[in-house]
Amino acid sequence: MSQPTISAFSWVPPFAQGLVRDLRARWALEEAGLGYEVLWRRPDAPIDDHYRSMQPFGQVPIYREDGLVLFESGAIVLHVARRSAALWPSGDAQQAQVITWLFAAMNSIEPFIQQLAEIDLFHAEEAWAQQRRPGAEAALRQRLQQLAAVLAERDYLVDGRFTVADLLMTTVLRILRHTELVSGDAVLGAYVERCQARPAFARALTDHLQPFGDADKA
Amino acid sequence: MSQPTISAFSWVPPFAQGLVRDLRARWALEEAGLGYEVLWRRPDAPIDDHYRSMQPFGQVPIYREDGLVLFESGAIVLHVARRSAALWPSGDAQQAQVITWLFAAMNSIEPFIQQLAEIDLFHAEEAWAQQRRPGAEAALRQRLQQLAAVLAERDYLVDGRFTVADLLMTTVLRILRHTELVSGDAVLGAYVERCQARPAFARALTDHLQPFGDADKA
Repeated sequence: MSQPTISAFSWVPPFAQGLVRDLRARWALEEAGLGYEVLWRRPDAPIDDHYRSMQPFGQVPIYREDGLVLFESGAIVLHVARRSAALWPSGDAQQAQVITWLFAAMNSIEPFIQQLAEIDLFHAEEAWAQQRRPGAEAALRQRLQQLAAVLAERDYLVDGRFTVADLLMTTVLRILRHTELVSGDAVLGAYVERCQARPAFARALTDHLQPFGDADKA
Repeated sequence: MSQPTISAFSWVPPFAQGLVRDLRARWALEEAGLGYEVLWRRPDAPIDDHYRSMQPFGQVPIYREDGLVLFESGAIVLHVARRSAALWPSGDAQQAQVITWLFAAMNSIEPFIQQLAEIDLFHAEEAWAQQRRPGAEAALRQRLQQLAAVLAERDYLVDGRFTVADLLMTTVLRILRHTELVSGDAVLGAYVERCQARPAFARALTDHLQPFGDADKA
């Protein structure tokens, strides 16, 4: 198998640095011990037909390997996880639980987080956003409390050990770093710190952030 | 293997009838030719500890089979699909593409649809919702156009045939039935009609709707 390729932005504004979804693919690949190449995207480059043929929504990351092209960070980390005991439990039941939590991260948690982040990062000065924010935060707080109730009883989501479900959930919760909704919660804050303490995360984050210091790439 | 069990509401308001996510599980089970039992949930019943132990967010459906309990409609339809050639292609590359599109439906399309549906169905009279709606619709329209660009070139998302990815995407697009955003689009409207023409969909929808006519169950 040839070395896989992911796409990533060569620059993003500070509020997005450390959050762009190529970080998810990088972390999974680091956990799996797989090297990879990066297809750089300039943030101001138009989405051409070639890139759109790989990623219909024009986003990063894509994942390419031996003619296979995937998109969606959830699908990419699942694809990588299946090759690595560091991310993927043995046992059909445990694997089904991991997949359940991948979808939970992407569909039951992230949309609520994104709604608040969009208000705070893109629309904070608009009247509608100020009126909507309390309701959006309340809905999100309920989801976070439900997640914290699960994690109050166990250190990791599935099978008593770190899996790709924790990888994805951690990167989703990180989106709230501009608030204290996660860092100020004893259970969720400790969970994110526990997952982020992994050496593979540190390597992935360093590589994700590396180009942003280089103004020439912007 | 014992017959699987899913959970479903015994009643929901008309705006939600035909949209609750147990429909997704029912449709997958019908395509796979698997019988199932229903664990009925009264819509006004509190979420007790037992149910919460199966579904941390208190929602429907759960999926239970021989001691395995799953939640998240995306994970459930994927689990069922793997047993059925009607939903699941052969070939690793095709399977990876199906999983990519399951995540796309849940994370790249549904959140935009839900944001508009939430405005229209729950907040239509509020000032913030009226101010926000044009922006939410514009963001959604962009995603729908990107999806339509894919489906303009092929009848189904993956491998030239109906798969579980189409099942899930169709149920996501159905959420917009109160608008003309899908039905008024030549490509997306035809796609949803093509998928909904399947006999398994008709059986699933009939069974999903059946209890709502019975006021005693409300």
